[in-house]
Amino acid sequence: VCTPLTPDGDVDVRSLERLVGHLLDGGVDGLFALGSTSEVAFLTDHQRALVLRTVVERAEGRVPVLAGVIDMTTPRVIEHAYAAVKAGCDGLVATAPFYTRTHPVEIERHFRLIAASVDSPLYAYDLPVSVHAKLDAAMLLDLAAEGVLAGLKDSSGDDAGLRALLVARGDRGAELEGFSVLTGSELTVDFALEMGADGVVPGLGNVDPAGYVRLHRHCRAGEVAAARAEQERLLRLMELAQAGGVSRMGRGSSALGGFKVALHLLGVIDCPSTAAPQIPFNDAETALVRGRLEAAGLL
Amino acid sequence: VCTPLTPDGDVDVRSLERLVGHLLDGGVDGLFALGSTSEVAFLTDHQRALVLRTVVERAEGRVPVLAGVIDMTTPRVIEHAYAAVKAGCDGLVATAPFYTRTHPVEIERHFRLIAASVDSPLYAYDLPVSVHAKLDAAMLLDLAAEGVLAGLKDSSGDDAGLRALLVARGDRGAELEGFSVLTGSELTVDFALEMGADGVVPGLGNVDPAGYVRLHRHCRAGEVAAARAEQERLLRLMELAQAGGVSRMGRGSSALGGFKVALHLLGVIDCPSTAAPQIPFNDAETALVRGRLEAAGLL
Amino acid sequence: VCTPLTPDGDVDVRSLERLVGHLLDGGVDGLFALGSTSEVAFLTDHQRALVLRTVVERAEGRVPVLAGVIDMTTPRVIEHAYAAVKAGCDGLVATAPFYTRTHPVEIERHFRLIAASVDSPLYAYDLPVSVHAKLDAAMLLDLAAEGVLAGLKDSSGDDAGLRALLVARGDRGAELEGFSVLTGSELTVDFALEMGADGVVPGLGNVDPAGYVRLHRHCRAGEVAAARAEQERLLRLMELAQAGGVSRMGRGSSALGGFKVALHLLGVIDCPSTAAPQIPFNDAETALVRGRLEAAGLL
Amino acid sequence: VCTPLTPDGDVDVRSLERLVGHLLDGGVDGLFALGSTSEVAFLTDHQRALVLRTVVERAEGRVPVLAGVIDMTTPRVIEHAYAAVKAGCDGLVATAPFYTRTHPVEIERHFRLIAASVDSPLYAYDLPVSVHAKLDAAMLLDLAAEGVLAGLKDSSGDDAGLRALLVARGDRGAELEGFSVLTGSELTVDFALEMGADGVVPGLGNVDPAGYVRLHRHCRAGEVAAARAEQERLLRLMELAQAGGVSRMGRGSSALGGFKVALHLLGVIDCPSTAAPQIPFNDAETALVRGRLEAAGLL
Repeated sequence: VCTPLTPDGDVDVRSLERLVGHLLDGGVDGLFALGSTSEVAFLTDHQRALVLRTVVERAEGRVPVLAGVIDMTTPRVIEHAYAAVKAGCDGLVATAPFYTRTHPVEIERHFRLIAASVDSPLYAYDLPVSVHAKLDAAMLLDLAAEGVLAGLKDSSGDDAGLRALLVARGDRGAELEGFSVLTGSELTVDFALEMGADGVVPGLGNVDPAGYVRLHRHCRAGEVAAARAEQERLLRLMELAQAGGVSRMGRGSSALGGFKVALHLLGVIDCPSTAAPQIPFNDAETALVRGRLEAAGLL
Repeated sequence: VCTPLTPDGDVDVRSLERLVGHLLDGGVDGLFALGSTSEVAFLTDHQRALVLRTVVERAEGRVPVLAGVIDMTTPRVIEHAYAAVKAGCDGLVATAPFYTRTHPVEIERHFRLIAASVDSPLYAYDLPVSVHAKLDAAMLLDLAAEGVLAGLKDSSGDDAGLRALLVARGDRGAELEGFSVLTGSELTVDFALEMGADGVVPGLGNVDPAGYVRLHRHCRAGEVAAARAEQERLLRLMELAQAGGVSRMGRGSSALGGFKVALHLLGVIDCPSTAAPQIPFNDAETALVRGRLEAAGLL
Repeated sequence: VCTPLTPDGDVDVRSLERLVGHLLDGGVDGLFALGSTSEVAFLTDHQRALVLRTVVERAEGRVPVLAGVIDMTTPRVIEHAYAAVKAGCDGLVATAPFYTRTHPVEIERHFRLIAASVDSPLYAYDLPVSVHAKLDAAMLLDLAAEGVLAGLKDSSGDDAGLRALLVARGDRGAELEGFSVLTGSELTVDFALEMGADGVVPGLGNVDPAGYVRLHRHCRAGEVAAARAEQERLLRLMELAQAGGVSRMGRGSSALGGFKVALHLLGVIDCPSTAAPQIPFNDAETALVRGRLEAAGLL
Repeated sequence: VCTPLTPDGDVDVRSLERLVGHLLDGGVDGLFALGSTSEVAFLTDHQRALVLRTVVERAEGRVPVLAGVIDMTTPRVIEHAYAAVKAGCDGLVATAPFYTRTHPVEIERHFRLIAASVDSPLYAYDLPVSVHAKLDAAMLLDLAAEGVLAGLKDSSGDDAGLRALLVARGDRGAELEGFSVLTGSELTVDFALEMGADGVVPGLGNVDPAGYVRLHRHCRAGEVAAARAEQERLLRLMELAQAGGVSRMGRGSSALGGFKVALHLLGVIDCPSTAAPQIPFNDAETALVRGRLEAAGLL
């Protein structure tokens, strides 16, 4: 779930409510608030709390709400975990420590300590592009078998690694039943589901939730050709995330800005602003986004 | 300034006061609280505030107190900046954004926005090992000339780059007068000062502040041989930062743990605990630290 | 195609001939000699020539032979290209420059100059783990449209990027007809083929060529369940590439050693030696390989 | 020693002879041929042999000639080592393996095998920017104590690490006597020599050998102020290595091109060409180089 902002950088609660409605109308099975696509790294603790409160209220219990508890190390993550539980979220999503130089043994300890601190399902978030470390598959499965982890959101882009993990999960049988594996890779959802992944948490799903819901349904129904066509349509739509010029802004700013410009053009949110210090899209970049929306049949 | 913790992970205020006293007695010209060596990445906002309050009070205005305002992006850094100013700190130290993928143009905007938000001198903190980006020298000097930056803490370990920046600062003359350049490299302080750096902010200075004060004095007095001998003594002492086994913990944990074990052995702090999820030193590692302290004449 | 070596590090021509026979018997459609799996980085120019001569002769024109022309920069690659053409190879496979710090514009020039120097189809080899740069998809397609590149061997492990390239290839239509895209990712072959890739060049195919041929056939026939089962069997077999202890050797040495130990246990090659300075497998590691072969039904 | 090329990319022997004369006239104590600055990565084996023959002949035994034996792995490096010994070089300089993923244990074995293969002093070349690995100081000193390594050329830019190695060398005493440590960092030569380094191998020394000889002499004579002034003059001169636009070429191309343009403007070499696929300097970039030469008093 993106976090709509006002031009002044405040959380735009009305737009966020509309966005949640847009996602629910699209047919999603759950909501992930305060993930990377939410600009969680840019939100103050007060804003994070406001986002969670808004999303939980607007979801009205129709689908579960997961909350990202993104921060540098264990004690700070645990603070966010308390806030998320208090806000009524149904699960927590935490990365390994970052900024610090952390040993795998310490990463394992990190997840154990978070899980021990709160009574809520904990999902590991594998995001090497931000965290600069890849989570070890064997460690994840061991922590799952012990009940420390309820699931994994894999945004590593390493589909071969994801597949090896899914096969290993299957081979270990009952002890890993219930360990939920979700992919964050927007462009290979059909394959991830066929590999055995339990779901997908796509940033692009903000823009076209119904498309991802259709894709999921086609995959579950074994409609391979339809799934492939839908996925390729979404792949072309995903080009809006590269609309921001690489000489003007970072890749993150381009993706987050592209999603928000699209949501603005679709009339879901009032303002396409991204948080500081990100550079806003100019007219040419906005036109590129519009073109992708039109080509995808959304405008 | 390290942040002493209790075995339960709380800030040990009495030990922190003693540590500040230890540093002031050693003759330091300033205090940098909430830098990397303080385990700032592991401290909650409440703990950060307690640290600043304690250091500022104990310093009693005898030396300036700089505060690290370390967080992922501009809005979160600005929140810390407000808190630091409120605590009475004399300057702020901020890194570039991390976790996000940030363009140089956005990094520049980041520093501008922080400086515009508070009325306190702003120092850029160059720490590629944590931030995964190196600050551009030309950008730093331009921001300094405009009055956005008051100084730089260079912990990049790139002494050639530091020298090029110092020479360029000199070549630009009056417009950069007052732009203060501090090195964070503990092992080449004599050379940094000879290059024209204005000071040093060494993590190892927690353990032996008097040694670094002597080193600084020798350098300023042109006592080259004495400076070199003192620096080499400190270099050997610095081996305590590698005492933590690399197969058991991260390099950060080893350095932070080494400093704290040393301060504990010296009787300055009550407990050598580091924050979660860092692995504590075992007896063999502690013995290595003791050995380095003895060899350096501190025990 | 692996390069069997004698205990003294010489090319074992008889074993290499048997290995080529093993691959042809398995039903492969082509042979890639002097790729990473061949230990090309460890072979002297004399050994490289001997390998090409042996593979071309043994292949007897039944399938095309591609030759890796792996070296640091353009002039050295061109020397290898001359040698490969002289040896009768049917195509060349070149990476971007490495060791040097090369700009994308220079990478593009590199491929143009190689293509201009010899009259043989040129394939780009995308292998960031070795080259420390990812080839740009738009550049590859432009070079293909101009006739500079005949194809791509994608060993980047980035299946989403591969898919975007394949979709773009399709969208550009006739001008890219004949541009052949091969994946080097052993664990997601079914999906790569479904995405539109033209083939697979798997290192593990040395050990079980018939398995990959079956997998390819299932995919082309639309036998999804059979393809998935075969791919998962091969995925489990691939664990032999991790049999070398990470505390004793590099990951490359483990994979190359695992393949060779397997080929030795299967009776295809006389000796499992890898080239210096790689560490040989010990008995425990060899037993792990044997276990994977047995589980995969190969022993 | 740079390798002058003709516009067609051949070694320009006459220019190379003049360059060696320029260096000898400048007063250098030795010559390092086929280092990174020589564009060794771009030279074919035939060209490498021609370079060594030319440099050795022109040096006439007045100073020792070291030869880079730069290649991916042990067997290929050993081939170059044979050629260098045959050409009459007085020592060999080898990096760790690259392109491959090599374990520290394998790196150690690499140096042992090279040393065992030829009867010539072997220097380790620490160049992480190209090799993507940093050589371990303890390993280097152990290999030195055993007589495997005669010296180290440290181009890592890590002056703190260099200092720790030099102090450790001193602490180990007689067993490391004769282990020669040379820095490749052009901008901190005065400090490296003061730390205890035995010499400097600066790429920029091609352009101004007399400047580096003066700098060395000042340092040995304890003329601190004169050394500092000379080093700062050379630092400003070094800006010619950044004259190539970063949007047009790689950093390596800029440095190598800058050196050659300078040598051409100084009349030492006939043509500023660099090897393919590097981009040549344009007029504006050439003018920047001319400006730095003038400012340094060389034109």
